Amino acid sequence: MDTTSHQDFSAGAAYVGGTFMPIGQASISITDWGFLRSDATYDVVTVWDGAFFRLDAHLERFAASCRSLRLDIGLAPQAITDILHECVRLSGLRASYVEMIATRGQPPWGSRDPRQAVNQFYAFAVPYVWIANEAQRQQGLHVHVSDVQRIPPASVDPRVKNYHWNDLTMGLLGALDAGFDTVVLSDGDGNVVEGPGFNVFCVNAAGTLVTPLEGVLEGITRRTVIEMAQALALPLEQRALPAAELCAAREVFLTSSGGGVLPVTRIDGTPVGDGRVGPLTRRLTETYWAWHRDARYSTPVRYGA
Amino acid sequence: MDTTSHQDFSAGAAYVGGTFMPIGQASISITDWGFLRSDATYDVVTVWDGAFFRLDAHLERFAASCRSLRLDIGLAPQAITDILHECVRLSGLRASYVEMIATRGQPPWGSRDPRQAVNQFYAFAVPYVWIANEAQRQQGLHVHVSDVQRIPPASVDPRVKNYHWNDLTMGLLGALDAGFDTVVLSDGDGNVVEGPGFNVFCVNAAGTLVTPLEGVLEGITRRTVIEMAQALALPLEQRALPAAELCAAREVFLTSSGGGVLPVTRIDGTPVGDGRVGPLTRRLTETYWAWHRDARYSTPVRYGA
Repeated sequence: MDTTSHQDFSAGAAYVGGTFMPIGQASISITDWGFLRSDATYDVVTVWDGAFFRLDAHLERFAASCRSLRLDIGLAPQAITDILHECVRLSGLRASYVEMIATRGQPPWGSRDPRQAVNQFYAFAVPYVWIANEAQRQQGLHVHVSDVQRIPPASVDPRVKNYHWNDLTMGLLGALDAGFDTVVLSDGDGNVVEGPGFNVFCVNAAGTLVTPLEGVLEGITRRTVIEMAQALALPLEQRALPAAELCAAREVFLTSSGGGVLPVTRIDGTPVGDGRVGPLTRRLTETYWAWHRDARYSTPVRYGA
Repeated sequence: MDTTSHQDFSAGAAYVGGTFMPIGQASISITDWGFLRSDATYDVVTVWDGAFFRLDAHLERFAASCRSLRLDIGLAPQAITDILHECVRLSGLRASYVEMIATRGQPPWGSRDPRQAVNQFYAFAVPYVWIANEAQRQQGLHVHVSDVQRIPPASVDPRVKNYHWNDLTMGLLGALDAGFDTVVLSDGDGNVVEGPGFNVFCVNAAGTLVTPLEGVLEGITRRTVIEMAQALALPLEQRALPAAELCAAREVFLTSSGGGVLPVTRIDGTPVGDGRVGPLTRRLTETYWAWHRDARYSTPVRYGA
């Protein structure tokens, strides 16, 4: 029997414990170590204009993250793909933020051995999430470079997408209180690394695109910008990015699945370049959305299933 | 109507969304940032022989943690106390591990501002959890000092009890694989800090109790040991604890609400002292359990409510 036909999925659909349900009903066990120890990894793929963008890249990164954390959810990529399609189909959303999650689950009561836990898989599709609102996308964001240090790679591998966000959250709270739009954290050695949900790029004084190499998530949108730079023959360096170089840059932008390429026009009260969205940022933004219509990166959602 | 009277709480009882329920039914919304950003704090108080141990200290620390993260759950300490009593009463447990949790909750859809979220409170009582099993408590634990670095205070304040455990989990997995019982992480400067759910103490070659001061949770059991040392006129230093000093110590023990004072008799294959549980460790263990019967620290559970 199709138990989903009478439910309202318009706010989003989730997959929990083998069942599809409206997002408002989706929950995880309070004793899942995915919550109680943030022992989990996840990935987010977006749907734009009815198609997944770079679904394969997200599935590959998710599988690599699971391997790193030694999480085995017992699902092949095709099975995960089917679940994600079904979440989006049920929601009917043409623009969606689709999250897949693997958690440790829980070992038998009394055990503290993660190897004895039964790992869990969850997924949900909700309306597309923008890191920046419409005005911010037009005029550029005002970013604060925080003294809060991003959790270092010696503690938590940033390439394994994770929910260890306290540093990002506390940095964000400080930035919002002070009137900034968002925040970029540093590494304790004077370099910027990343912000809550995004990577950072600049076009430096020499005209070269620079993005941090260490201490950051290898974002799929970041990768897309790197590939676009190659396609457009733009010079690009992946290396440590000193905060001073960022502040002196001609252009600065953020990259995220939550909006693609997002312009930054002020940093800590000082305009970036002439204070307007720069030409390279515009060109990469246009290319980013154009690639959404490219069959190499685009997977139409199976709405008709 | 008392809806709890026909339910089975023997595995534990939880408080979720204003309702008491068996632990197996307790869950948190998958979209709560307490999960999706590990934006949460918690505390664990134990019940031993029908009484809470140092309940006030745990409630005070929990309130301080909530203030640090700017979480407002809208409950006075007395209201939290009543919920914890009821969780234990429903479970009927005489020895229990009682956890209280505050999460960010979720802001309105589309908002990324933590200040707009409605914070949530959860609690549960389950059977008492031991960090070390019976044999380990008798013979002492075999501990590995890991190269994994504990998340530093510049990133996440360790005094705010949190679920950022990936470093602890990965260190623990490495230690378990190699045949050790548990793990202690270091700070990257050659000092040990803490392990998964416990603080570390040693009795060094000079006969002084030493426990790390920076980069660690200010554990209530750690505080209890410090106060016992004062009461017993034992010399104690809170300062950086080099791994080399730990390995050369006469005695080593761990402290946790999950078992109190727990002996360590081997570190990375080498016996601590003569390889047997030492006299100070025994004395502190006995005093720890004796204090459970002291009305200054003990609050009988209201089972009869």
